[in-house]
Amino acid sequence: MTRAEPHMAMGNGAEFDIIRRLQARWGPLAVGLGDDAAEIEVPRGERMVVSTDASLDEVHFERRWLTWREVGYRAVTAALSDLAAMAAAPIGVLLALAMPKPTDRIDELADGIGDAVRAADTVIRGGNLARADKVAITTTVLGTVSKPLRRNAARVGHLLYVTGRLGGPAAAIRAFQSGQTPDATLRERFARPVARIAEARWLVEHGALAGIDISDGLGGDAGHLARASQVGIECSMGDVPRMDGVTDEDLLGGEEYELLVTSPATLPASEFERRFDTPLTLIGHVVPGDRVTFLDGGRVASPRGHDHFLR
Amino acid sequence: MTRAEPHMAMGNGAEFDIIRRLQARWGPLAVGLGDDAAEIEVPRGERMVVSTDASLDEVHFERRWLTWREVGYRAVTAALSDLAAMAAAPIGVLLALAMPKPTDRIDELADGIGDAVRAADTVIRGGNLARADKVAITTTVLGTVSKPLRRNAARVGHLLYVTGRLGGPAAAIRAFQSGQTPDATLRERFARPVARIAEARWLVEHGALAGIDISDGLGGDAGHLARASQVGIECSMGDVPRMDGVTDEDLLGGEEYELLVTSPATLPASEFERRFDTPLTLIGHVVPGDRVTFLDGGRVASPRGHDHFLR
Repeated sequence: MTRAEPHMAMGNGAEFDIIRRLQARWGPLAVGLGDDAAEIEVPRGERMVVSTDASLDEVHFERRWLTWREVGYRAVTAALSDLAAMAAAPIGVLLALAMPKPTDRIDELADGIGDAVRAADTVIRGGNLARADKVAITTTVLGTVSKPLRRNAARVGHLLYVTGRLGGPAAAIRAFQSGQTPDATLRERFARPVARIAEARWLVEHGALAGIDISDGLGGDAGHLARASQVGIECSMGDVPRMDGVTDEDLLGGEEYELLVTSPATLPASEFERRFDTPLTLIGHVVPGDRVTFLDGGRVASPRGHDHFLR
Repeated sequence: MTRAEPHMAMGNGAEFDIIRRLQARWGPLAVGLGDDAAEIEVPRGERMVVSTDASLDEVHFERRWLTWREVGYRAVTAALSDLAAMAAAPIGVLLALAMPKPTDRIDELADGIGDAVRAADTVIRGGNLARADKVAITTTVLGTVSKPLRRNAARVGHLLYVTGRLGGPAAAIRAFQSGQTPDATLRERFARPVARIAEARWLVEHGALAGIDISDGLGGDAGHLARASQVGIECSMGDVPRMDGVTDEDLLGGEEYELLVTSPATLPASEFERRFDTPLTLIGHVVPGDRVTFLDGGRVASPRGHDHFLR
């Protein structure tokens, strides 16, 4: 699928100069740039999965908080996380980049984009360049899947699991917003999230049926899962693994890109942890009804997810 | 491929409110919105073709020239034209929309997007919403193809054909830029281009091998074809069909979204014209070398394509 194809010979002009510069930066990570469209073969029995995600300067990121390399990495990783949410294997990304007159930042952005593409073991298959006042990275991810995780597949009695330790991104943002420098581990968790692609496929192989990536926050995404599946969810806050330095509120923040999955049977969590060097934790279960309830000892919390459009 | 699927049940919040508003506007044109990603089945023996294209306020369009409905229509049609350039059949589009706080313009934009999607007999399969200072529409188009038109398939001796009559968009832009109102027919040609999807598939069935859509201008796109195929192209300017009111310079303008194709044998042009109500015209041929030559009577012209990034 990801074999290197020769690039089309291209003409002159600023647009092609930038494409060539990006190609030079990306090397074998970019295939077939410069044609009208990318051609992709889909293995028999697999379905295509596609999703698009935008990362806009001053909307989705604050330049003071991140290097351009981190901006590029996060934008593409956030998009790839939508493939993880469906347990799809990536077969490529398309990048629509808008930016002011290009300077060195394009190399840094390209390197960050390349880091994310390499981490997901995929390639860049095309894109679009435009000049704009502010940097915008719109990433379309392409993947294939035979057994998808679905939002609407949670059933009463399923167990609810989460990957990783939560709260790092929100804690880092809280520090940034109050003018402080976040703890290095928290900052790294915010700046370099991991799209849980291999983890999602492992989870499906071991019995997970429903799933979502935690981009809107644990409360918001548990809500999406509950509504799509027409079930209720009960989650024990005390069981949610958290990073050091994380408050209760941070724990419910977004931009985690960890996975929230449900499974009819117990998942081999210690095997998961050995394999991926990150925890898989039972944090609740699927119940009748239509409410997401967070149990904090005896107290019931009602967290809100964040809303991209309100930011 | 385009069967209606139930939409996922969705949560509250401004983002979902807008998605619901768009869904209401689009009706059966939108399928499966609200999930992490769209799932698509690819027919056996076909390859996927994907491309992404951005249309940005003040970069790709001037608000004074177009209604929001036309802005939406043109943005999506320009993207769909990349499928036509490869003779692919569309199976859906993903839309990343950025805009200021939504007002009624979102309904107009949605209607224009819907017009373009309907004209291509396809559906909207997902997308992304974000708030930004200016409107940006990034469209990813998905299609399938078994026998593609390719940029690099032009061979010495091939005949060069163009669909439609050229120059309308450039003439309309020229009028706009000089503060005049363009002739209604020229304005319509600029505001409501056609993605030549059915035409491209007909051309392949009748023997066309290489092709490109004329987005950068006849000169620029003939150049792309020549360079990708490592051939020369000779084109007779006098044979290029033009709309009334079009200058020689307009004739070489971009944003046509007509097709430029090469074929080893004569194409049945009158059959094409009867079927699609637009001309198919022999305008030149593929020659040895690496130059694109426009013959204007005895004179040799050297037109330049336009460069999106320089605008």
